Amino acid sequence: MQTDFMKEYTQRIALLDDRIERYLDSVSDLEPCLRDGMKYSVLNGGKRLRSILVLEVCRMLGGTDEIALPFAMAVEFIHAYSLVHDDLPAMDNAPERRGKPSCHVKFGEGMAVLIGDALLNLAFEIMADACTSGDASKAKAMSHMAKSAGVTGMIGGQAIDLSIAGQTKVDEAILVRLIERKTMSLIRTAIMAGAHLAGASQKQLEMLEQYGYHLGLAFQLRDDIEDEEQDATDGQVCPNYLNTLGKEHTISALKMHSDKAREIISSFSRSDFLCRMHNFLFQGEQ
Amino acid sequence: MQTDFMKEYTQRIALLDDRIERYLDSVSDLEPCLRDGMKYSVLNGGKRLRSILVLEVCRMLGGTDEIALPFAMAVEFIHAYSLVHDDLPAMDNAPERRGKPSCHVKFGEGMAVLIGDALLNLAFEIMADACTSGDASKAKAMSHMAKSAGVTGMIGGQAIDLSIAGQTKVDEAILVRLIERKTMSLIRTAIMAGAHLAGASQKQLEMLEQYGYHLGLAFQLRDDIEDEEQDATDGQVCPNYLNTLGKEHTISALKMHSDKAREIISSFSRSDFLCRMHNFLFQGEQ
Repeated sequence: MQTDFMKEYTQRIALLDDRIERYLDSVSDLEPCLRDGMKYSVLNGGKRLRSILVLEVCRMLGGTDEIALPFAMAVEFIHAYSLVHDDLPAMDNAPERRGKPSCHVKFGEGMAVLIGDALLNLAFEIMADACTSGDASKAKAMSHMAKSAGVTGMIGGQAIDLSIAGQTKVDEAILVRLIERKTMSLIRTAIMAGAHLAGASQKQLEMLEQYGYHLGLAFQLRDDIEDEEQDATDGQVCPNYLNTLGKEHTISALKMHSDKAREIISSFSRSDFLCRMHNFLFQGEQ
Repeated sequence: MQTDFMKEYTQRIALLDDRIERYLDSVSDLEPCLRDGMKYSVLNGGKRLRSILVLEVCRMLGGTDEIALPFAMAVEFIHAYSLVHDDLPAMDNAPERRGKPSCHVKFGEGMAVLIGDALLNLAFEIMADACTSGDASKAKAMSHMAKSAGVTGMIGGQAIDLSIAGQTKVDEAILVRLIERKTMSLIRTAIMAGAHLAGASQKQLEMLEQYGYHLGLAFQLRDDIEDEEQDATDGQVCPNYLNTLGKEHTISALKMHSDKAREIISSFSRSDFLCRMHNFLFQGEQ
């Protein structure tokens, strides 16, 4: 069953990567350095989790791929821009990303700032274009995405991250604020964008808001546990749940949030793919 | 008459600065460093030319300030973000902006990247919020703004600028491409956003597209002439019309484009303020 699931998941990644590549190729009269830099930073073998959530939540609620795809691409562009800027020497100073030179190492620092700007801006070009038909549900999806990427979302989280740089253990309240903004907000908005695009009811929106909260937190907790070994190897220790709450508490919190997310999503009709994805992502929880 | 005009123009700057400050103060639960950095970078005594164009074109065509103000603020946020990122050490490495330390000198380089990102994103948050009513004309204004700020607009221009850094004289075709993208695109989109917001007809849109072209180019030519003395003093010489086309050609081109812009705008009813602004900005042309 897992093999079948992987096949389906890989098909979705291929669909998204193909659309992203074709979109970037279709922008006419573009400086080659910007096209190369954007392609390098987005088409990097990512798991496309956020964009698949946009697509699948929209599908689950009866929306079409045609409606969802511009927003699915946009969330990947926003995710990619945030990584390009986070890797900069003045931020996390990361020389590599997914085993390849990071964007500023490959294209130079000034160009990496611009490539990040370009990706963020392009996300909004795509969404704004989709909204020119005057469809309020698309504008709501775009507005949700903008807030989650913004100063009280992802950018706010990165500002907290910069301000606690060098500390290995921080107050739990700061850690929660950091994680909610920096990593959870884009996962939650992917779900909410998919829901708005499909014209979800108020009740569905409320349930999916909760789903996004528990799923986003479960991801972070799982990543913290998986990163433990890596951190021990390379000596880098960042503030996270493990070193703030301890391993036992982190594992039980992961189970609780993962279970809660699965409970909510399985209560929806046509949630088969999202349920199987959940099982796949949280294998220990199957 | 000029004193009267200045009084009216200053009132508009005060209206915009007040709205921008109140908006930035109203964002709740924001990291203080982001609020401080955004205020520092936007409320800097600028002339607000772009935002006044959004307001005044919208007013001229019968639109309200209430409709125009979110887009007027957005264009100032986009302009401010571009200056914050352009000033970075990896870009123009400018230690000062309007006689004050530039953003990265004041807040640190990593934070300046974030403050720029925050301003760009906030521009889209404001516009996306305005679009959630499902008004197609607002989405069209936002779409125009996003394209003009983007990879085939301002960001594209900055990419050209980076690629010719150090050259004092470039091919005229490259210079035109640079100027159209880097400096003219935001002036043109301010005009077109105001027009879309007021529900301009196709004929009006076409005329205002031309107005934006000639006005944007006239500004650039005027700046190049005014900058000549400054450049001679500080030894910095950038590619511009003067050192590509020569002074005589630049002055006659300025007259031609300024005249053309005035001719178009004066053909509109209720264009009194924009006509007087034109005379004020191009005093030598009165």
